[in-house]
Amino acid sequence: MRRSSSPTRDTEQVSDLFWPGDDRAGAHLSSEQLLAAMLRVEEAWLDVLVEHGVAPRVARSPLHVPLGRLPDLVVAAEQAGNPVTAMLRMIRADLDTPAETVRWLHRGLSSQDVVDTALMWLLGTAARDVRLALEQQVVTLVELALDHRDTPVVARTLTQHAVPTTFGLKVASWLSGVLDAYEDVDALVFPVQVGGAAGTMAAAVELGLDPYVARAGLASRLGLSDAPSWHTTRSAVTRVGDALVRCTDAWGRIANDVLTWSRPEIGEVGEGTGGGSSTMPHKANPVLSTLVRRAALTTPQLAATLHLAAAEQVDERADGGWHAEWAPLRDLARRTLVAGSQTTDLLAGLVVHPARMASTLERARADVHAEQRSMAGVAGHEPSGDYLGIAGGLVDDVVSRARATLEETR
Amino acid sequence: MRRSSSPTRDTEQVSDLFWPGDDRAGAHLSSEQLLAAMLRVEEAWLDVLVEHGVAPRVARSPLHVPLGRLPDLVVAAEQAGNPVTAMLRMIRADLDTPAETVRWLHRGLSSQDVVDTALMWLLGTAARDVRLALEQQVVTLVELALDHRDTPVVARTLTQHAVPTTFGLKVASWLSGVLDAYEDVDALVFPVQVGGAAGTMAAAVELGLDPYVARAGLASRLGLSDAPSWHTTRSAVTRVGDALVRCTDAWGRIANDVLTWSRPEIGEVGEGTGGGSSTMPHKANPVLSTLVRRAALTTPQLAATLHLAAAEQVDERADGGWHAEWAPLRDLARRTLVAGSQTTDLLAGLVVHPARMASTLERARADVHAEQRSMAGVAGHEPSGDYLGIAGGLVDDVVSRARATLEETR
Amino acid sequence: MRRSSSPTRDTEQVSDLFWPGDDRAGAHLSSEQLLAAMLRVEEAWLDVLVEHGVAPRVARSPLHVPLGRLPDLVVAAEQAGNPVTAMLRMIRADLDTPAETVRWLHRGLSSQDVVDTALMWLLGTAARDVRLALEQQVVTLVELALDHRDTPVVARTLTQHAVPTTFGLKVASWLSGVLDAYEDVDALVFPVQVGGAAGTMAAAVELGLDPYVARAGLASRLGLSDAPSWHTTRSAVTRVGDALVRCTDAWGRIANDVLTWSRPEIGEVGEGTGGGSSTMPHKANPVLSTLVRRAALTTPQLAATLHLAAAEQVDERADGGWHAEWAPLRDLARRTLVAGSQTTDLLAGLVVHPARMASTLERARADVHAEQRSMAGVAGHEPSGDYLGIAGGLVDDVVSRARATLEETR
Amino acid sequence: MRRSSSPTRDTEQVSDLFWPGDDRAGAHLSSEQLLAAMLRVEEAWLDVLVEHGVAPRVARSPLHVPLGRLPDLVVAAEQAGNPVTAMLRMIRADLDTPAETVRWLHRGLSSQDVVDTALMWLLGTAARDVRLALEQQVVTLVELALDHRDTPVVARTLTQHAVPTTFGLKVASWLSGVLDAYEDVDALVFPVQVGGAAGTMAAAVELGLDPYVARAGLASRLGLSDAPSWHTTRSAVTRVGDALVRCTDAWGRIANDVLTWSRPEIGEVGEGTGGGSSTMPHKANPVLSTLVRRAALTTPQLAATLHLAAAEQVDERADGGWHAEWAPLRDLARRTLVAGSQTTDLLAGLVVHPARMASTLERARADVHAEQRSMAGVAGHEPSGDYLGIAGGLVDDVVSRARATLEETR
Repeated sequence: MRRSSSPTRDTEQVSDLFWPGDDRAGAHLSSEQLLAAMLRVEEAWLDVLVEHGVAPRVARSPLHVPLGRLPDLVVAAEQAGNPVTAMLRMIRADLDTPAETVRWLHRGLSSQDVVDTALMWLLGTAARDVRLALEQQVVTLVELALDHRDTPVVARTLTQHAVPTTFGLKVASWLSGVLDAYEDVDALVFPVQVGGAAGTMAAAVELGLDPYVARAGLASRLGLSDAPSWHTTRSAVTRVGDALVRCTDAWGRIANDVLTWSRPEIGEVGEGTGGGSSTMPHKANPVLSTLVRRAALTTPQLAATLHLAAAEQVDERADGGWHAEWAPLRDLARRTLVAGSQTTDLLAGLVVHPARMASTLERARADVHAEQRSMAGVAGHEPSGDYLGIAGGLVDDVVSRARATLEETR
Repeated sequence: MRRSSSPTRDTEQVSDLFWPGDDRAGAHLSSEQLLAAMLRVEEAWLDVLVEHGVAPRVARSPLHVPLGRLPDLVVAAEQAGNPVTAMLRMIRADLDTPAETVRWLHRGLSSQDVVDTALMWLLGTAARDVRLALEQQVVTLVELALDHRDTPVVARTLTQHAVPTTFGLKVASWLSGVLDAYEDVDALVFPVQVGGAAGTMAAAVELGLDPYVARAGLASRLGLSDAPSWHTTRSAVTRVGDALVRCTDAWGRIANDVLTWSRPEIGEVGEGTGGGSSTMPHKANPVLSTLVRRAALTTPQLAATLHLAAAEQVDERADGGWHAEWAPLRDLARRTLVAGSQTTDLLAGLVVHPARMASTLERARADVHAEQRSMAGVAGHEPSGDYLGIAGGLVDDVVSRARATLEETR
Repeated sequence: MRRSSSPTRDTEQVSDLFWPGDDRAGAHLSSEQLLAAMLRVEEAWLDVLVEHGVAPRVARSPLHVPLGRLPDLVVAAEQAGNPVTAMLRMIRADLDTPAETVRWLHRGLSSQDVVDTALMWLLGTAARDVRLALEQQVVTLVELALDHRDTPVVARTLTQHAVPTTFGLKVASWLSGVLDAYEDVDALVFPVQVGGAAGTMAAAVELGLDPYVARAGLASRLGLSDAPSWHTTRSAVTRVGDALVRCTDAWGRIANDVLTWSRPEIGEVGEGTGGGSSTMPHKANPVLSTLVRRAALTTPQLAATLHLAAAEQVDERADGGWHAEWAPLRDLARRTLVAGSQTTDLLAGLVVHPARMASTLERARADVHAEQRSMAGVAGHEPSGDYLGIAGGLVDDVVSRARATLEETR
Repeated sequence: MRRSSSPTRDTEQVSDLFWPGDDRAGAHLSSEQLLAAMLRVEEAWLDVLVEHGVAPRVARSPLHVPLGRLPDLVVAAEQAGNPVTAMLRMIRADLDTPAETVRWLHRGLSSQDVVDTALMWLLGTAARDVRLALEQQVVTLVELALDHRDTPVVARTLTQHAVPTTFGLKVASWLSGVLDAYEDVDALVFPVQVGGAAGTMAAAVELGLDPYVARAGLASRLGLSDAPSWHTTRSAVTRVGDALVRCTDAWGRIANDVLTWSRPEIGEVGEGTGGGSSTMPHKANPVLSTLVRRAALTTPQLAATLHLAAAEQVDERADGGWHAEWAPLRDLARRTLVAGSQTTDLLAGLVVHPARMASTLERARADVHAEQRSMAGVAGHEPSGDYLGIAGGLVDDVVSRARATLEETR
């Protein structure tokens, strides 16, 4: 199986045997990446403290927790309910950490500031790769839709033959779903989180920082949006979740079509390279579609969990609603990345069988033109033509939208 | 219990004893309204046919199915899997329906066109009322946040006392969630659905219509957006679902706070009028908050079902994925309307007890200033002041955002 | 479309145009039935009070709230967060209610006792009808499996032809799912709820009742199980939810098979009577399967909501977790009843096309015997026979299980 | 934080920084364990082949895939959509694998047989540890309930003071939820999966095996139940899912109570050792309860995904519905194990403050006895006593049930 050269492949390995294809998500939102992101947030904040003259220049030091200590960190993370306190303890206990770094590290931040900012940074990176996958798909789909703009095929409603349409229009319909998803991913905003213990930035003020400037400084260092603290207002999180599910919705629907149309009795399309069977040598299973469909069956519940977590906020830090977000966000992001990469490959390799489409349509001729005869009767003329309506024009419309979208965002 | 004068109250009664407060949603998305909306779509399409010279002027006739026949319609709706065919049969069988109306009725449309367009029209109307509720809440919350801009209260994280904050900032945090929801509801687009049997508009073309003009004409008659057919691309539906859940997320979080803070041991706020008990005369239960919280626990799963239905599209009309949308959409919209109205009343009647806040804060003084002492120590000065950071400024920022939002959209 | 003579059809009409086929659930768990059930619980409790000599004989009186007042009751129900207080107020205000009834009505019970007991009673009745539908299906499936015990057909894995099997074994696999669901529904227990304000039965004791005898008395009057109060321990509710979803899981899978195999290109089965199209006269849509599949896509999320509600219990009565159960339980029960009745009809009317099965199998002969050749090679002999393994024996095993199950429970 | 000596701790490390406490699940359902379980299934099947004289004795060989190849296996697993084919290829390519092992390996099984059987074996092991945790909790809760059988405390409904109760009864209510969960976990059945390519065992028969004896042989070797193949009848999976969620429901409710009652304003209980804050030295956060509550917010949606996957079965192997089960099952099992271990520790360390309970009850005296006065008035006598009803008796009843349950299952 050929694989698209994903920008996220990495030497660092994440091995989830329960989710074939998981490696396509590379190191995105791995535990290692979370640790690295949290360290980067703390480093950037030290920069802010130094730059504003609150901490001395020597406090600025690269922060490090050896990957080998990750298992210990997971164990220790439970004590505070999140990994920040234990991570700070490890850094402070490290004899290589300068005394001024120990003194100034994390001052003015809360654990939630660090975790939320790190997650937003990781999600922003993941979303960038999701958007790239969507872009590649748009390009492929535009080509496929134009190639088959006028390829006749039967339309099916509730599984039965309906009227004629074109394969180009079927592809255009896939494309419009992908474009909708693209719009939503493209519109996402990833805000920094800087509120201190309870959102007031009291510690930052006590330290002598200009809180607004410091917050903006952290945001700009990390490429995040500046925003007032949002400790218990989780729209930023649910919007990410909803946009990612919109992607797997669009891909799941493509997968369903491919799975249906590549049944041997239908045979209108096929995956470029099918998957083998452990026991049946002739099989060429539509494995990519199967795995994409798998994702689409699981992501809506993950996004629902994010909404529940958002609704279960209380006080200035929730007693579980916050903690419930992390793993579902990771799973949702990784599954979206995997399904996106698989869909890109699926589309790139898709084999189309116009002759089979034509023969099925021909056999169904009497039925699929019944509506035409009935409409012509009402209108008082003889039925004529292929009864394709504006199929071609609709393809052109979606292609135009696709081109405008790609144009705008490049 | 005083109730806000909701614009949706209606003489037509929907009685759901399983969802106390359901009447607040008025007739929105009732079965009667769905029937009325489908009739209106068919009427508007007849107008299009007449205006474009395809059907004679006499075909234009008000369409009617007596409400008393609704139960029969529900039974008959099963035969085609949706209510349109049975509705058309009833209209055509009606001796009062002019012959030309019988002849031209529904020509060029599919059942899905009628159901989808009717639902979008109903959802657009529901969203308008949701937006009104959000606007009212914004006004109330702005006032409440400013009134208590400087009211000190303890911040709580993971249920425990953290540092001082202001009640104004707590309210501002509620407000920012409401504004996020407002933005998403305000951005919703409700597209018309006109594709005919399989999205190609072949029937419309066969009848001699200019398909683009006809589609735009139907959209404008119903106040909907013009759009290419989206039979199996359901982003319009999932976006509505996600925006509505964003509302109940925001309200659920407010409800949690009120439920927690109105516990007698805390006593910092109270619902204006509490609910009674069937057996304990002294009780004043926070009923509105309870019912809002109830909604927030159920809506995420409804929105997830919409995503699943979107992912389960196939061919030119899905074999279940389409049908699975209707009831969850109705329930999601009505529960959002009910929770919105309840939240409006909850906020309008909220009683705040600053003295109680002050005494709890005073008792916790040593603890909640521990962080301040520690920060002052690091910074090398004596701790001083209320340790409220930029609580006031953050309130002002959210209030500004609220005012700008209301300004823009009026 | 022929319809099975469901025991639940009723003159009382519930009209949900958003859920075609909803009328098949009759009046089960309608608002009217909830009111009637709550009244019956209060009557039965009055009986208990009288029988135990606590209340005078004249307190025993049929209780009545006119159906016309249901809309008022829905409105009034919001005040206490549940309908009981308002219902009691209506009964007490009724001049026909005897003074002693007014005095003794509801004494010793809480609102939650009444709602929970009424719901359990309604759910028990609904489960009985679900079980009847499952029984009918078992009978039909046994016959179908035996009729086609030796009908060859291709097995399909990941949409592709695999090896030969029999249609009887496919049916036997449906049957085993239905039997699993049957076992779970049959094992359900519906407990009475009698705890008073906080589960202690303090009011009952204060009134002079023997609390254990009174509780058992209410249970036996209503045909429910006796049980200690379970106000915030909701396993009884989630077990009902899980068993009902197990039904729609089993039916959804049957529906998927019928939808797939009745595609014109496959044509191995067909619904007895297909549904029509509003515009295409030739269509015979697999509407029952479509609607059953629809249900199976929505019920898992409803059952998940019941689990969340169970997990969100707190104190002696939850502030939303309890209220969130009612509508999902109603929807879950009604959709299960509808899907059950539809599946019964679907199976009764199923048309099987053995000739089509045979011709497809014949065409795929080389492929579907590839594994056989490979196994025979390993074993060192020539491949021989139909390669059906123990398909027949597996059918017999499931049929035996079905007969034993029906035997046991009759 | 003290930790219970969990039987599942292991040297093999799984490090999920997104789920603090994840290490408590040890190696249960890790990718390594899945690989090991699949190897064990293949080994046991080789034993069956040898024992039945189908394969020569030399075919029996320990199977091995080096852990270092796991990342490669994850990558390769995508090609067939599941890891079995790639695993077999690795074994066969290994020069140390005897030729007869290469020849006979996997003969008669399908990939699904291996994955399903391996998962059932892993889930059975996980369920055993869940049951052990529940048993420990039962023991602790029995003691706690009896210790506080007569400790008075206020009952709260909808957050407000209701009537008096005992802390023992509160604990008894927790206990009854834990016992319900215990019953469901204890009743679980873990069936072997042996069907071959399409459930008929045709390959096994072709190889000369007695299929029934072979199937039973594999089951008994692995400690699983014998059962007819269930490739697309997934009740065994959903029953596991539902039982595990019933556990987190029971624990989530306990966590909510502890979180509420350990608020400083209430102060009736406390976690033995609270979690620290990264910035506030005085904090003692109820971290275990927070993390248990977190789990309870996420598991219902995972179980719902299993139901959806069950409903989305089709043909003889589903095109996504099967694959969608694995990761949610793993997550559900691990989160249940973690939450179970955390709840065990939470209960073992729980600190109870009877004096605080007494003083709150005393302050609320007038209110919480209002119902008693009203009942006494109706009954025509003076109110007397503590108004605790049968609180003590209810404790005794649940304790008896607990003892009987432990007795039976030991």
